[in-house]
Amino acid sequence: MPKGTISILGLGAMGSAIADRLRGTGYDTTVWNRTPARTEPHRAAGSNVAATVAEAAAASDIVFVVLLDHASVREHLEPVAAELKGKVVVNLTTTTPNEARDTAAWAAEQGLTYLDGAIMAVPAMIGTPASLLLYSGDENAYAIAKTALETLGTAEFEGADAGLASLKDMALLTAMYAMFGGVLQAVAMMRTVGAPAAQTARDIVAWLGAVVPLAELTVAVVDGGDYDAGAGQSVDFTRAAVASLITAAREQGTGADFLEPLMKHLDERAATGRGNADWVSVIEQLKITA
Amino acid sequence: MPKGTISILGLGAMGSAIADRLRGTGYDTTVWNRTPARTEPHRAAGSNVAATVAEAAAASDIVFVVLLDHASVREHLEPVAAELKGKVVVNLTTTTPNEARDTAAWAAEQGLTYLDGAIMAVPAMIGTPASLLLYSGDENAYAIAKTALETLGTAEFEGADAGLASLKDMALLTAMYAMFGGVLQAVAMMRTVGAPAAQTARDIVAWLGAVVPLAELTVAVVDGGDYDAGAGQSVDFTRAAVASLITAAREQGTGADFLEPLMKHLDERAATGRGNADWVSVIEQLKITA
Repeated sequence: MPKGTISILGLGAMGSAIADRLRGTGYDTTVWNRTPARTEPHRAAGSNVAATVAEAAAASDIVFVVLLDHASVREHLEPVAAELKGKVVVNLTTTTPNEARDTAAWAAEQGLTYLDGAIMAVPAMIGTPASLLLYSGDENAYAIAKTALETLGTAEFEGADAGLASLKDMALLTAMYAMFGGVLQAVAMMRTVGAPAAQTARDIVAWLGAVVPLAELTVAVVDGGDYDAGAGQSVDFTRAAVASLITAAREQGTGADFLEPLMKHLDERAATGRGNADWVSVIEQLKITA
Repeated sequence: MPKGTISILGLGAMGSAIADRLRGTGYDTTVWNRTPARTEPHRAAGSNVAATVAEAAAASDIVFVVLLDHASVREHLEPVAAELKGKVVVNLTTTTPNEARDTAAWAAEQGLTYLDGAIMAVPAMIGTPASLLLYSGDENAYAIAKTALETLGTAEFEGADAGLASLKDMALLTAMYAMFGGVLQAVAMMRTVGAPAAQTARDIVAWLGAVVPLAELTVAVVDGGDYDAGAGQSVDFTRAAVASLITAAREQGTGADFLEPLMKHLDERAATGRGNADWVSVIEQLKITA
């Protein structure tokens, strides 16, 4: 007996992985994709194939949306608002927090129960606990869809603001891409003396594995807001250290692009007389002031 | 019976930790510091105190140098080259690779056996296996000092080029500071919705713990040099993802300073027709071209 009915709009790599997992764990699935050829393997594996978005929307109690971007979500959902009324819509398309909030507001006007999701995993990880899926928006929708959501990976509800899942996703991805930028620069520096990238990467993985946990202690000062207590590393100390890294990178001919933003902020702290403060106070400057 | 004689020049936080550890493990230690007051706790604990650098240099077979910077190293060592002749000098002062090479060349002229070192640890970690100390330069000096060096933490010899220890240290620190920049931006983004820094930091530590090991696979493509095989994420895909993170950061009002260097390089790749290449090919642009 099927666990329930779920439609999946969009069969890119992620949408396909989600459809496979839901079908494989006993859901009665209906799939739709703009390019019909992509539906064939799903039909062969036992999914129903909808010819239109409206048909897919009508077929199930829960509708997963895994499309290209925010614009395509709205383009495909707006014409089928009537079919979606009273149903749970789970939007797993990558959007910004404000786009998620915008779609949540539209969904509320239309009488849809809307949940915005963010997937912190690659398609191959779907269905394993290592895949982390963040959700925010209608808590009732989360409760209704929870069993299905937990089939996809570790599920976390972040709160009623529909933008929260996307925001947390993007904050974590920001940390990741900034880290990878530094990794590329480190590998480039070591290549100047002939060190293979693979070897440098192994060293970096070991080193970052040791220092990443220090992030908790390092930023703890932010919540208290007292950057002058002196427990952490100072702006001046960090500034000298980063300046020295930049000099070394220039000497090696790689430049130091990925350290320039931190240097700029440390310089600004020092220039405003905050050289003795905790270097983490740089966070207070991360504001758009224009 | 003492294990051997070692002098330590410089009793800042790191120099003091090194002197404490060497004395505590049975070495006959002689200490010197520009400000004599700092020598007192060491005298009380059993170290010999030298009144001059020359006296400290003459007292031991191995001389550790833990001073402020490259300039202070040369200022203090040059006048005592005669006393240091035939001895092992281990310079643990933070310097750039080229500064280390410069001091190694000077040491060779003077008949000193020179080893340059880089400490990847805070003073409290000295004496534990978690402290990693990198060395490069005279391999014979490394062999002579090895037992003492291993007393301080995990010791690694990087090669005969005296700049290697410093270069690897700085490459790893570059990755670390770039990562911390991203952490600060992520924490700033989550603060805009009231999330405490400590909570965001916990989430980041868990997330980066999961993705840091992917760095090995991610940069593996660099050694082969074929960025068009298609196994990794493309420039265009990464560019869209990072652009979306930047938009989100701007929407939240924090700006996206720490992602700008990566965006700049991805844009440049795309502009030169490399949008389909592996995004890691950005590393080929990390060169000073001016």
